[in-house]
Amino acid sequence: MGDHRRSAACLAVGSELLGGDKLDRNSLTVSRALAGLGLAMTEKRVVGDDVEAIAGAVGDLVARHDLVVVTGGLGPTADDVTRDAVARALGRAIEHDPAVAGWIRERYAAQGREMPVHAPSMARVVAGSRPLPNLRGAAPGLLVELGDRVLAVLPGPPWEMVEMLERDVLPVVASWDPGARRLSRTLLVGGVFESDVEQRVRPLYERFGRDDVSILASYGVVRLVLWAAGDGPAAMDRLGEMERAFSERLGNDLAGVDLTGLAEAAVVGLRRRGERLATAESCTGGLVSARLTDVPGASEVFVGGVVAYSNEVKELELEVPLATLVGHGAVSEAVARAMAEGARRRLAADWGVAITGIAGPTGGTEDKPVGLVHWAVAGPDGVAAAHRVFPGDRSVVREWSCNSALDLLRRRLAGLG
Amino acid sequence: MGDHRRSAACLAVGSELLGGDKLDRNSLTVSRALAGLGLAMTEKRVVGDDVEAIAGAVGDLVARHDLVVVTGGLGPTADDVTRDAVARALGRAIEHDPAVAGWIRERYAAQGREMPVHAPSMARVVAGSRPLPNLRGAAPGLLVELGDRVLAVLPGPPWEMVEMLERDVLPVVASWDPGARRLSRTLLVGGVFESDVEQRVRPLYERFGRDDVSILASYGVVRLVLWAAGDGPAAMDRLGEMERAFSERLGNDLAGVDLTGLAEAAVVGLRRRGERLATAESCTGGLVSARLTDVPGASEVFVGGVVAYSNEVKELELEVPLATLVGHGAVSEAVARAMAEGARRRLAADWGVAITGIAGPTGGTEDKPVGLVHWAVAGPDGVAAAHRVFPGDRSVVREWSCNSALDLLRRRLAGLG
Repeated sequence: MGDHRRSAACLAVGSELLGGDKLDRNSLTVSRALAGLGLAMTEKRVVGDDVEAIAGAVGDLVARHDLVVVTGGLGPTADDVTRDAVARALGRAIEHDPAVAGWIRERYAAQGREMPVHAPSMARVVAGSRPLPNLRGAAPGLLVELGDRVLAVLPGPPWEMVEMLERDVLPVVASWDPGARRLSRTLLVGGVFESDVEQRVRPLYERFGRDDVSILASYGVVRLVLWAAGDGPAAMDRLGEMERAFSERLGNDLAGVDLTGLAEAAVVGLRRRGERLATAESCTGGLVSARLTDVPGASEVFVGGVVAYSNEVKELELEVPLATLVGHGAVSEAVARAMAEGARRRLAADWGVAITGIAGPTGGTEDKPVGLVHWAVAGPDGVAAAHRVFPGDRSVVREWSCNSALDLLRRRLAGLG
Repeated sequence: MGDHRRSAACLAVGSELLGGDKLDRNSLTVSRALAGLGLAMTEKRVVGDDVEAIAGAVGDLVARHDLVVVTGGLGPTADDVTRDAVARALGRAIEHDPAVAGWIRERYAAQGREMPVHAPSMARVVAGSRPLPNLRGAAPGLLVELGDRVLAVLPGPPWEMVEMLERDVLPVVASWDPGARRLSRTLLVGGVFESDVEQRVRPLYERFGRDDVSILASYGVVRLVLWAAGDGPAAMDRLGEMERAFSERLGNDLAGVDLTGLAEAAVVGLRRRGERLATAESCTGGLVSARLTDVPGASEVFVGGVVAYSNEVKELELEVPLATLVGHGAVSEAVARAMAEGARRRLAADWGVAITGIAGPTGGTEDKPVGLVHWAVAGPDGVAAAHRVFPGDRSVVREWSCNSALDLLRRRLAGLG
């Protein structure tokens, strides 16, 4: 193996993942878990519940990657054909495994549920594979070692998948040549465009190597991922050196290190100060509070919020004066400021963050076009506000708004202008 | 072509789409657009910003699909290598196109922005391809006709991608053999497990054909997609017949037809009655209101809501009596009912929907385990409540909670028990 850099791929199986409204999210979990072990995901695929399509993809992927993680299609219904497809791709037989049949019977018995007629089909295993028990559901997984490569086939439900991944797949990866591993650290940057970030850090590419830095941008948030080969003290030192050099270039735009996003940066800032936050949202309709409450432990610092979609609610619940609403219009700096102050005062919090804007597709005027958004942060030392006309459709404008307001909040929490 | 069923595939290019936090969403837009023209997406892939990986995937996909849509990697930076990869996959040269260079210059001039040094690299086109102007950004796309197959290469930003897709790609698909097209209709089912839905509709599979029905399930919502070959009156008639037969089997569990989700079902129900809604959320932290305000036109029927994360906010803003909070605990039917009534009364709405629960990972007790969620709907004719212990992690519990509460709401709006 030596300095051969190993690669991983994910294949999600399920016709529902090819339509217009559902995405495979298991690959995110797998990516995060593998990154922790220094193994990079280099390809992802999705195919429908079709033996030929699954077998084709499995055959193709195991020929090119060291680890292939397949998720979905292991249940008992006629749609679930992943087992057969894997057997076909590897040119192996399918065998009934009495021990696995026992697991499945026990699972239903423990839950006091009647076993569905087709449940025993889940005891069919690919010859030469290792069946993996499912502690959170009925469908077992399977693991196949192909020389020094591994194919893991896991159930589709995320809750079942992650348990099996951590228990049975990650230890195999962890046992691989440590020389191929990499450590990473992610710098979260708020309130700056990707191109600005790139311009500022470019001189460091030469010093540290272009391959060891990735820039990922997403509507008001830029992530700089720094990589170092190995996983020992030397790699830690190098990451520390990189972090210092990049942080210096980023200055106050650096929102934090290894955070999930700006909502977590805000939660961290509030926790550090021992202070509490309330939200007041119009066009984002609860997105900011939904993001904040996605952060485990948010309840220590987030008291709640008001989604003030109508003007009546802005008046009633946030005490925005009618004269301000009429005089400036609901989408205005004056109303954003009043909302932030209202949330802070009414919900008895130290900080209030507010957003009001026109997310579209309708509601724009010549003066106030679609995409115009005002946001404000009220705190112990006064109110700050900002606004911008964001490009993009409704969901993009909402995303930008959410991140812009959270960035203003985390700057104020850090005592920055 | 005749009854050859055409297929489409998507390839998203971008290393940021292989990490642990960002998913390609362009494929959803493409799927939806193609479904409208009766063309099914049968495969999706993601690869990083790597010439060899992109070229390999493009070559593979154009050999197997009638339409391949590639998104991303068309910008001016060194990372953007999709053009070169496509040229390599097709064995064609790259040429400088002076007309395209003109578009790019004009784009920057019109915005009053200085042209970045590397911008002219975007005027390099694949020989024999048709360059596609970008009306919402700088990077042009390209379209290659390969016999009766089409390869479309579009920019990654969704806002730019969708405009080019609709203007230059969909018309090509629409011109294909109408005999290969399919119409679809989606029945949205709430409050029932996928296995129950399958059991109830199974007798209809024989009558209409198993291939013309898909079942897609997602945490409290099941979608039944019905397909009919063709796009003329005969196909419409058949879809109508299928819809009637399946609707009869589903009864009151049918939440609506061709809706984006249960939030839209609720908005439709409210609009039909000319009534208005307020929300009160604890563990879902604003998810319900964020979903409702994702539906265009929600402002007509949704006045706003309160995210009551702390008990103080439940008392202050929703008038939940302290005695109820102390006596029953924040996660209880009594508190869910009081929250729903409080939201309705305080926000001057006709309906109030409330959720309180323990999303985890911590906060559970023996009596009230992680996953326990109570929800309630208050309306002109009283309050209804329900509860369940949902399996899964924090985000799964929140998703189930959101859908369960919206389903109770849409049932009450429809006058169902």
